Amino acid sequence: MKSPTSLIRPLVRKLHPYVPGEQPRIRGLIKLNTNENPYPPAPAVLRAVQGAVDGRLRLYPNPTSQALRERLARLHGCLPENVIVGNGSDELLALAVRTFVEPASLGANRSRSALQYFDPSYSLYPVLADTHGARTLSEPLGESFALPTPAELRRRGRWDFRAALTLVTTPNAPTGRAFSRRELAALCKAQKGVVVLDEAYVDFARENAASLAFRFPHVLVARTFSKAYSLCFQRVGYMLGHRVLIDAMDRMRDSYNVNGLGQVAALATLDHLSYYRRGFGKIRATRDRLTRELTALGFEVLPSQANFILARPPGMPAERWLEELRARRILVRWFRYPRVKAYLRITIGTNPQANALLRAVREIV
Amino acid sequence: MKSPTSLIRPLVRKLHPYVPGEQPRIRGLIKLNTNENPYPPAPAVLRAVQGAVDGRLRLYPNPTSQALRERLARLHGCLPENVIVGNGSDELLALAVRTFVEPASLGANRSRSALQYFDPSYSLYPVLADTHGARTLSEPLGESFALPTPAELRRRGRWDFRAALTLVTTPNAPTGRAFSRRELAALCKAQKGVVVLDEAYVDFARENAASLAFRFPHVLVARTFSKAYSLCFQRVGYMLGHRVLIDAMDRMRDSYNVNGLGQVAALATLDHLSYYRRGFGKIRATRDRLTRELTALGFEVLPSQANFILARPPGMPAERWLEELRARRILVRWFRYPRVKAYLRITIGTNPQANALLRAVREIV
Repeated sequence: MKSPTSLIRPLVRKLHPYVPGEQPRIRGLIKLNTNENPYPPAPAVLRAVQGAVDGRLRLYPNPTSQALRERLARLHGCLPENVIVGNGSDELLALAVRTFVEPASLGANRSRSALQYFDPSYSLYPVLADTHGARTLSEPLGESFALPTPAELRRRGRWDFRAALTLVTTPNAPTGRAFSRRELAALCKAQKGVVVLDEAYVDFARENAASLAFRFPHVLVARTFSKAYSLCFQRVGYMLGHRVLIDAMDRMRDSYNVNGLGQVAALATLDHLSYYRRGFGKIRATRDRLTRELTALGFEVLPSQANFILARPPGMPAERWLEELRARRILVRWFRYPRVKAYLRITIGTNPQANALLRAVREIV
Repeated sequence: MKSPTSLIRPLVRKLHPYVPGEQPRIRGLIKLNTNENPYPPAPAVLRAVQGAVDGRLRLYPNPTSQALRERLARLHGCLPENVIVGNGSDELLALAVRTFVEPASLGANRSRSALQYFDPSYSLYPVLADTHGARTLSEPLGESFALPTPAELRRRGRWDFRAALTLVTTPNAPTGRAFSRRELAALCKAQKGVVVLDEAYVDFARENAASLAFRFPHVLVARTFSKAYSLCFQRVGYMLGHRVLIDAMDRMRDSYNVNGLGQVAALATLDHLSYYRRGFGKIRATRDRLTRELTALGFEVLPSQANFILARPPGMPAERWLEELRARRILVRWFRYPRVKAYLRITIGTNPQANALLRAVREIV
């Protein structure tokens, strides 16, 4: 049987797939590698999901996540037409690429096929560009991973203010640094193409930029129930923005893209936000303590507004630290990319998990 | 605020989205419009899902549906590398288009950008082609909606034996007619591009063609847990085929494409197949009885091997029948397409639902 490689699009043959963080099931493992919330969903959310597990599983879920979109519209002070729900915000990022960016083919205007982002940011973006056949434009962040101003980007001369799609993670990953609404607004104002503000971690930050999705017709804001709302397992994210952009993405999505129990879980979550806000407070407190104590132990810890920190460990390469911690059943994340390979990205867990991490670090140093 | 229409790809602006069947929540409604199984999932499956609804929802699901792929590989006598799991088989159909078909752009070889299917078949296919910018080739089925032989397709002169992707629904929707493994094998043998045999309804048929996914390196077989296994709500489908094709699709998919409770439900389902097989028997018996009784009432009912029938009602247009039945709280499906617009597609429900349908029909005739 000959290999059917010739049947595959050349673009696909060349792909380097996105590498998700490990999900090992090791007993007693402290898992600080994929930015999951250490606290479970609200008990009422679990009850709501359990209560929905019955004969109705045989029926298709609502194809447009109608009830959830209505509830999100109330939360954000907009209309359901300004909201699209996805199978995690990852699906919506991929949809945005397919909706707004032309594949780079003969004759296509360069900006029309450009997917642009800052480096470092969410490592999925270049994968989405390659998957779609878009041109990738990656622009280094400034010193301490700051967002360059439009004037600075103009001076540097590479940035495309007409790029079809610009993706900005804020607070940023893996740095944890948040960009202010004011600096994001300045960037949005300067862009002519679509801008997605990817706010996956915004619930752990001091401010958010959701209002920009309503101030600018070309700006979309992405949110997820995964991290802050402890629903990674159920794949629910959403985007906010102008109804014309949302409608276009809606035409491109799979018809039943969001599973029913995920819709149930997300809806119940929105009825119990105070439970989650208490958790955010605990996570921020643990984050600030961990930042102080790791700094005292010789780490360089970047100020974070997310539920993780980026920390440069002392004494030996970060990759060695990854192994040493893993040997002590603590899993953190390390990226082989130039600007961050001296750092570890550490998800903020519970206080006991932070203590276990600090004990392990003291053993290693 | 000016409309941001200019930011949307011209291809997307022109799209006619796929219209899913209605999911109304009307009290007492008999819902025979979207081919859902009338019987609930096995009690043990519901218990397995309920048992998984706990703090673990905060964690990402297995990104490759590993346990489920291993279990499906055992069922089909292949390796996990021959299996890809998707957010319903719809996601996998869309992925196949993006993996194997070039968007029709300047200079692309015509066959390389061709998505080909028979008419009528699953109405999603042309939507997938348009979404991707593929060329659509649609070829009429023969008399009584039979599958044309390769010789007949050659005589007709339009069929592309080199089309990048050919999609075949079997048993077919909305006709219910199944194509035999032998005739499907003859078609597969004649094709040079990828062929997907979309077996969403195959559990209600006399035979299946899964073995062709292993006999031919360019053939994929699509299955779903939605219809036969009463899991529409949870969005789990899969494809079988050569590891090179499966690996290519795997690179194109979203990293966490299948929600965790869906994986749990599908795994538990595979432990209780005998429960489902009893249900298939009941559905087939109801289907055969409904076929006989509707025929006696003046309907022309096509022989079906699916969990629905395509029936041409007597006396007045099918669209009027749709309304008359709806007024009696019975929902069936009607398609405005030339070759089937004289027919109603009626999902096979329980025996009491069939009796209610027959009562309503007797009232109307």
